[in-house]
This record gives sequence, C-alpha cells and structure tokens, in this order.
Amino acid sequence: MNAMSRVELGRLISFIERGEPLAPRQKRLIHSPTSARVIGITGPPGAGKSTLVDALIASYRRLSARVAVIAVDPTSPVTGGAVLGDRVRMGRHAVDDGVFIRSMGSRGRTDGLSPSVRDASRVLSNAGYDPIFIETVGVGQIELGVVECCDLRILVLAPLWGDYIQAVKAGVIEMIDLVVVNKADLPGAGALVHELEQALHGKRGSEVRVVMASANQGDKGAESVPPAIDSAWQILSSSGLTQRRIEATEAELVNRVQDTFANGPLRGAIRAGNAQLLAEQVTLGTISASEAATELFKVALATCTRTGNGPTVKKEP
Amino acid sequence: MNAMSRVELGRLISFIERGEPLAPRQKRLIHSPTSARVIGITGPPGAGKSTLVDALIASYRRLSARVAVIAVDPTSPVTGGAVLGDRVRMGRHAVDDGVFIRSMGSRGRTDGLSPSVRDASRVLSNAGYDPIFIETVGVGQIELGVVECCDLRILVLAPLWGDYIQAVKAGVIEMIDLVVVNKADLPGAGALVHELEQALHGKRGSEVRVVMASANQGDKGAESVPPAIDSAWQILSSSGLTQRRIEATEAELVNRVQDTFANGPLRGAIRAGNAQLLAEQVTLGTISASEAATELFKVALATCTRTGNGPTVKKEP
Repeated sequence: MNAMSRVELGRLISFIERGEPLAPRQKRLIHSPTSARVIGITGPPGAGKSTLVDALIASYRRLSARVAVIAVDPTSPVTGGAVLGDRVRMGRHAVDDGVFIRSMGSRGRTDGLSPSVRDASRVLSNAGYDPIFIETVGVGQIELGVVECCDLRILVLAPLWGDYIQAVKAGVIEMIDLVVVNKADLPGAGALVHELEQALHGKRGSEVRVVMASANQGDKGAESVPPAIDSAWQILSSSGLTQRRIEATEAELVNRVQDTFANGPLRGAIRAGNAQLLAEQVTLGTISASEAATELFKVALATCTRTGNGPTVKKEP
Repeated sequence: MNAMSRVELGRLISFIERGEPLAPRQKRLIHSPTSARVIGITGPPGAGKSTLVDALIASYRRLSARVAVIAVDPTSPVTGGAVLGDRVRMGRHAVDDGVFIRSMGSRGRTDGLSPSVRDASRVLSNAGYDPIFIETVGVGQIELGVVECCDLRILVLAPLWGDYIQAVKAGVIEMIDLVVVNKADLPGAGALVHELEQALHGKRGSEVRVVMASANQGDKGAESVPPAIDSAWQILSSSGLTQRRIEATEAELVNRVQDTFANGPLRGAIRAGNAQLLAEQVTLGTISASEAATELFKVALATCTRTGNGPTVKKEP
C-alpha cells in the first residue's frame, strides 16, 4: 500500500487522463500487479445505481475497507449532468478520507473501458482501495464493453422499467454475476425477480443470484447486497477470475494499439495533408471513398516503416 | 437517376452493412458523385424528432420529391426499441414508393457516421432520393459526430426539457444551421426561442434561424420547417457546402483507415496469439500494459510489411 493523499491521487488520475508524463513513483503505482476487487455496476437510467453505490460505500466502510468509485460517463460531455448529479448524491462520503470518488469520460469508446480508466483503477488498487466500483449508465453496447473489463459484474434493475426484456435480448444477462432488483418496494419487484430467475436458470445454472434492495431507504435497504457480492466473489475466485482478468487486459491492449495507430501513423498521414487531398478527390467524384481510404492507409504505414517500424519502446521502471 | 426498387435498395444497403461483395452496378451507385441534400436531425430523446421527420416527409412528398430517412441508432442493439418505435410511427409512408426509411446501427462508432451509413446515403442519392434525412438521438458526443457528417444540421429541442443549456454547454449550438423548437404549444416555448436567439446572436451572426413547430399537430404544425430548411440550404450552398463535404469525407476516410487497421494487421496480431500472451504477462505483473501495447503494435506493423505494405488496392469501377 502506498501512502498517497486523495488530492495526490486525484492529480495523478488527471495526469493519466491527459496522457502527461509521470514521475517514477507514480508509474510504480500503475505498473505494480494489482489485487483489488474491481466491481462493475451497470443498469438503465433510473434503476438507482448511484443510490445503491452510496449504500455500498457505507457498508464496506463499516468493515474499515478503503472504497473507490469511478463513474464512467459514456456520453460525456453533453449528458455529463447525470454523473455530476450522482457525485453530489454521494456527497456524504466527501469528507471521509477512506472513500475516493471520481467521474471519468469514456472518450467516446464503446468497446470497453478506456485505458486511462484501467490505469486509474490500477493506481487505486495499489494505493490500498478495495473494492473499486466502476459505475456506468447502461446505454446499449457501451455498458457491455465497460462491465466486461471488470472482475465482477453487477446489473441493477428496477421494476416497472421494462428493461429486463432489453437486458435479456441484448445478452447482458449472460455476462452478469449478480442481479440487484432495486426499488423492491415498488409493485412488480417480485414478478421481476421471478422472471430473472427463470431466465438465468436455463442459461448459466444456479450460481448467478438475484437479490432485492431498496437502496433509497438507507443503508439497511441494501444490506442484502454486500453478502451477495462476497459470495459471488467466492465463486469467481475459485473459478475464472484470472482468465477473466486476462481477457479484460487483452481487450485493453487492443484499445491501446488502436489509439497508438490513430495518434501516431494515422495522425502523421493526416498532418501531411493526404487525408484532405484525398477527401477533395472523393467529393469531386474522382476516386471512391474506399480507394481513398486504402491510399491513406498506405501512407500511414509508410510513415511507420520510414521511422523504424513503430514508436520507440519507452522502458518504464 | 437509377431505377432501383425499394426492395433492391434495402438489400443493397444490407450488403453494405455486412461488408459483402457488390455487383458492378451496385458499386456504381456508391462511387458516382452525389448531389442530394443530406440533412442531419438531432436532439434529445423526447424532443419529437421522429414526429417532425414524419411531417417533413409529407411536405417534401407534396413537392413530389423522393425522400429517404436513415435513423442512426447510436446505442444499438440494447435501446433498439426506440428506433423501432420511430419506424412504426413513420408507418403511414410505408406504402409510398417515393419514401425510403431505414434504421442502421452506428457500430459503436461515436466519432462520426460509420462508413456504411455514408455509403448508404450515396446509394440513395444516386437512386434519386433528395433530401436524405439522417436522424439520430442526441446522446452526447455521438450526436456531434453524426451531424458533423451531414450537409445541413438541424437541432430539435422542446420546452421544459432543460436540454437547451446542455446543448449550449456542449457546443452543439455552434455547429448547427437551424434550430427547431418543437412542441411549441407547451409553456416555455417562447422563452426557449428567446434564449436560443440570444445565444446564437453572439456567436455566428444572424444566419442561424430558430423556428417553432408543433409536429404532433399534423403536417400543418410543422409547415414553418421546410421553408426554413430551404433558406438555410441557400445560405449553405452560397458559402461553405463544398468545404463541409470535404471535411465530412476526411473524417470518413480516417474512420475507414482505423477500421482497415483493426480488421487487418491488428486482427492478425491477435490471431497469432500475441495479444493473449501479452495480456497474461500484464496480469501476472511481468510487464506493464503500455509496454505490452507497444509490443503488440510492433507485431501488427510487422504483419503489414511482411505482406507487402498493406492491403491490396482493389480497383473499383
């Protein structure tokens, strides 16, 4: 564990987000192997995810764990208001030094967590935070990509939203470890739990649990959730945790390589004026868009090979 | 103009979406220079975009124009229900052979229209459809990317939604040619128009107009919109239309090149097992994620240079 204040941590995560150079001590926080439980929480707007996370923070703090929350906003900046609202709602933990809450943009990435969110959770793990909750609003494919990069995956639903069918249709259900039916005091909660259990039973056997909560009724309303998380964690650790972490890292590496290509060779080709020239020709009808793209791709690759086959490998401590 | 039935057009667009090989006649529809007005319509959920598009279809059909609508769903597949609903609502035009309506996924792309949507609008233009409306629900950065790829950009807002402030904050207002305040029969419409005019006045001069509509009150409720579109089109044609088309095409080329890299060299490196091997080492803590990504990037580039510097240029007719 590394003694770093929340202010220092916040600054470091901002550096990571902006891709700024890091001090050796900061790099160590990223590059050391991590052990914290990274728990993804997703669900449709209105299911009460933030209220639930707020209650979970309180629960885990009673066990004197240091708890972190990263709220990933897939639609930043326009709908940033929602996440901002969530942060305000979690404000009772703002004075608690053992709680770190941060919202991060997804940088338009819909195929998984952005590398900077992954690095931020590495930093938080190595700074002694455990569990780390990654909360994201469920907007289609985006939610899938984000929760797929977490160790444990929780889906939060509420009755009367009809999102259950959407979740089943989209295959979200199939990759979830635990379902929380929140707002369980509303009519239809029992029926939703029943439907979910039916849907889950046929698919992955009995290890996926469905629990009810009423997180808006204070921490007591969500007291069923931490034990359910712990037992889902037990199941995961004894089966596929390492494999899951490897798969999430593989997805991260692919994202990183795409970024390297976009920010390196491709940007080089655009700067050299080739993209604009080709776009003019396509607009005039001289060549087709696919021919122009093939040409631009060649220019980008030529840039690479000229400069010695890719970027320099920076050895990190 | 190319005599192609709506069924044939629909099939061709499906081929484009799936990246299937096309017949020479089909390729010509994509590769001929296009002339149709491509009009992007965006706005928050609930602003009444589809009802407005429905009314616009009726207006332009009275001028005996062939009209096409592509509904781009940025969050497909989970929230696909919304677009499906929109299509049902536009059902009265289903029997009209001069109207082509289609929904397409954005393939998780948030940085602009997917190349297949661009190609579909080329096909529709060369099949005699004009105008072509590209409708997308405004979800943050996604809406910006999509409307930036259209010739003319319309923002639809409704009073009482508070989205005006969001739109101003996110800079959406600054790239819009026309604002439609829909649901103008609701209280607050006049105040919203006033606010918008104030916001627009300072920024881009008086050429951006704000018009009111009540598209839910039938086609008459939206009759102010087609003349406003026509006059915005006049302004655009006499100033920056070509430049705007070049910029949109440049963004498209960049997207295409990224896809070529991801589906070619990067996929090759992943298939060769390098991504998984590196992911294992990162998970074990042997190397850092950024080092592993640099390594994977090198492998991907080596694949390219071995096979002769990129993919073969297919000459298209």
